[in-house]
Amino acid sequence: MSHTAITALLAGKVEAHTTVTVKGWIRTRRDSKAGISFLAVHDGSCFDPIQAVVPNSLNNYDEITRLTAGCSVEVTGVLVQSQGKGQSFEIQAETVNVVGWIDNPDTYPMSAKRHSIEYLREHAHLRPRTNMIGAVTRVRNCLAQAIHRFYNERGFVWISTPIITASDCEGAGEMFRVSTLDNENLPRTDKGNVDYSEDFFGKEAFLTVSGQLNGETYCSAMSNIYTFGPTFRAENSNTSRHLAEFWMVEPEVAFADLEDIAKLAEDMLKYVFKAVLDERRDDMEFFAQRVEKTAIERLENFVDKDFAQVDYTEAVEILKACGKKFEYDVEWGVDLQSEHERYLAEVHFNAPVVIKNYPKDIKAFYMRANEDGKTVAAMDVVAPGIGEIIGGAQREERLDVLDARLDEMGLDKEDYSWYRDLRKYGTVPHSGFGLGFERLVAYVTGMGNVRDVIAFPRTKGSATY
Amino acid sequence: MSHTAITALLAGKVEAHTTVTVKGWIRTRRDSKAGISFLAVHDGSCFDPIQAVVPNSLNNYDEITRLTAGCSVEVTGVLVQSQGKGQSFEIQAETVNVVGWIDNPDTYPMSAKRHSIEYLREHAHLRPRTNMIGAVTRVRNCLAQAIHRFYNERGFVWISTPIITASDCEGAGEMFRVSTLDNENLPRTDKGNVDYSEDFFGKEAFLTVSGQLNGETYCSAMSNIYTFGPTFRAENSNTSRHLAEFWMVEPEVAFADLEDIAKLAEDMLKYVFKAVLDERRDDMEFFAQRVEKTAIERLENFVDKDFAQVDYTEAVEILKACGKKFEYDVEWGVDLQSEHERYLAEVHFNAPVVIKNYPKDIKAFYMRANEDGKTVAAMDVVAPGIGEIIGGAQREERLDVLDARLDEMGLDKEDYSWYRDLRKYGTVPHSGFGLGFERLVAYVTGMGNVRDVIAFPRTKGSATY
Repeated sequence: MSHTAITALLAGKVEAHTTVTVKGWIRTRRDSKAGISFLAVHDGSCFDPIQAVVPNSLNNYDEITRLTAGCSVEVTGVLVQSQGKGQSFEIQAETVNVVGWIDNPDTYPMSAKRHSIEYLREHAHLRPRTNMIGAVTRVRNCLAQAIHRFYNERGFVWISTPIITASDCEGAGEMFRVSTLDNENLPRTDKGNVDYSEDFFGKEAFLTVSGQLNGETYCSAMSNIYTFGPTFRAENSNTSRHLAEFWMVEPEVAFADLEDIAKLAEDMLKYVFKAVLDERRDDMEFFAQRVEKTAIERLENFVDKDFAQVDYTEAVEILKACGKKFEYDVEWGVDLQSEHERYLAEVHFNAPVVIKNYPKDIKAFYMRANEDGKTVAAMDVVAPGIGEIIGGAQREERLDVLDARLDEMGLDKEDYSWYRDLRKYGTVPHSGFGLGFERLVAYVTGMGNVRDVIAFPRTKGSATY
Repeated sequence: MSHTAITALLAGKVEAHTTVTVKGWIRTRRDSKAGISFLAVHDGSCFDPIQAVVPNSLNNYDEITRLTAGCSVEVTGVLVQSQGKGQSFEIQAETVNVVGWIDNPDTYPMSAKRHSIEYLREHAHLRPRTNMIGAVTRVRNCLAQAIHRFYNERGFVWISTPIITASDCEGAGEMFRVSTLDNENLPRTDKGNVDYSEDFFGKEAFLTVSGQLNGETYCSAMSNIYTFGPTFRAENSNTSRHLAEFWMVEPEVAFADLEDIAKLAEDMLKYVFKAVLDERRDDMEFFAQRVEKTAIERLENFVDKDFAQVDYTEAVEILKACGKKFEYDVEWGVDLQSEHERYLAEVHFNAPVVIKNYPKDIKAFYMRANEDGKTVAAMDVVAPGIGEIIGGAQREERLDVLDARLDEMGLDKEDYSWYRDLRKYGTVPHSGFGLGFERLVAYVTGMGNVRDVIAFPRTKGSATY
């Protein structure tokens, strides 16, 4: 028996007075004294459930009055415009088949009361049935689709950079080892160390912390590429902004300088926020009501406003002169803290800000040296209400400058031979950035913790499901 | 200086006699006796390079005559319709800036001669500059975009199921361990075993072999979901069809039976093949010329033909009666080999075939038991020219039947408690399948080895770059 998604019915895509079937789960049941039951049925296709009006003339009406939240049903009936407020259409049920019961409703972890966000996290396999996590899931999907669409429309090629890597090129953070060695019986070298030549890949291997360096290779052939895949940090950061496993979007653009990718970052964020405002208004209204009052307004502001741009050096001056007492002092040469970034975005500029040209000593080896000898062509995009959301840079495309920097930082050129090849053979200026996808979803939804915007969060001490 | 993608120029999207700039890499250079040089410049945006016609009146013409394959350039000039055959437009160059030289062209690994596929694999960081790997990269991207589009248009929600998992639920294959323990100094339990409670996640953790079981949880809330992410097998399979790290597409559909997802598989494959035929005709013509003569024809056939459907039991009868001598004998109860599948698809049906209802003893625990007590509602989609391309099943949604099967297979119900919860609380019939993305790309392009259709292949003994 074919059925129709509830979103199509509520959006008026099916003519009234048509007989339709919906399949989904009970959110609530209410019985009137007049012998009519009202079932709210959701199927995940949109925020609102559809109401099925069930008369007691149905053969299995006694079953209907035993339905509880979470039971699965198939409802067939006539679609009619609803008299009730807050709903466009409802179904006058002619048959209601119960597909799956809940034998003991008292044990159902997602019963119709409100649950704490921590409780939901403990039941990650069932939490998408809630209003909140259902909405997060749809918004997350909307953002992911919009990201692919944005890049595809602009001729970018999606590249899957490797997840397992034998090089910690970026030194961006603690890595997870990937191995098939028998830990109870590790092979040893003559010197008594673990012999990784016996391991699956013939050497020590890790989970990637970034696809960037690999992405640069394809950028140096396809011109415009992006990655969208999982990355990993084995950091013991028990914060609302860190996951051990998270998804990153990393575009890399040939013949592009810092200005070009600052523009790309602005265009991309506006594009995907606009997609959410257009396509997921229902879910965003829920977030505005229940999670973060300004959820819609701040996206609208974001889309409307030009990004501010400021050099790191000038930003430091602004912060020193502003008269505000920060927890951490600001001096030229130190990395900006979240409190500084947010002051710039929320108070000083009252707009998203691109902070550019950071001191080279606080940035990675691959960022392009500026002529002042002190700074590199790095940028962070900082947004009101969240702080840093994007980090990027123009890459050092000059082999001699790159080599000098590798030496300066005590890195072995041999380890970067393939990366250096890109500078030996038809090198081009190029730039890119990284966007942490969960932070983006958290920002859009107003959810305070990235653990609640990914299906099964992985953090220190936790990898259940 | 802004520039235009070569694909836009060759496709006639810019008016002739406009002054344009392209930026890219030299594929070939030819000098005429009349003092004109012809540069073929590619930028990865399409298969063909654009020809720049460079007169010796340019100031830096001596530089131009030293350009070799792989050098990067910026060419500005007037776009004109080309007189030469095989190209629509060319550029009458007014300036040619050399951006990146190759100091010693003899050492350039991607010089303009033909290289073996094995040689290219050894230079994976530069191989996308070749015609072949460039074409693979664009077709791969086209397929990925089409997959997202297909599911998004049908209301499916993309879910990122976890990469790191603490459960080997499916038992689908050898797994990689993920750990931050210091291998030189492993913590031990009282009994002397490795103490994984000290590890990052507080227990032994692995890389996922499939997102399916996790996907079922979201299917049981959002109705229609799909995953598209990396999966891992630590198998020592040195074949042209196996990678240690590969991407999988796994839709999961609530209220769907085996017929429904057989139809979904057919619709999806036709949709994405049609996208390639429509959008990447240039690359497909290359594959048809150089890699697999029937590359285009077989996609066209695939799109036009209805899939055949056959029960496993009947398939075995066909194979036993066909008179062909196979390497492996066929008997009811054994798994079909590639030679059997290909006979069915290529000879008997001469069409893609959905083989359904396999013996339960050769299939996984979660597949739905059929009424005959002997088979399960599993399916494989087998295509002419490649064999199995999709494997799927209706899932066992009945808790008592699932539990009996877990017992029968000696699996611990406690390990599957969250999976069993889906059957306790509003269970629904549901079905899904898995598609190995690299096998799909290999099939479409005719490339014989999956190592050549992913940017940086990971296989036993190899994780370079």
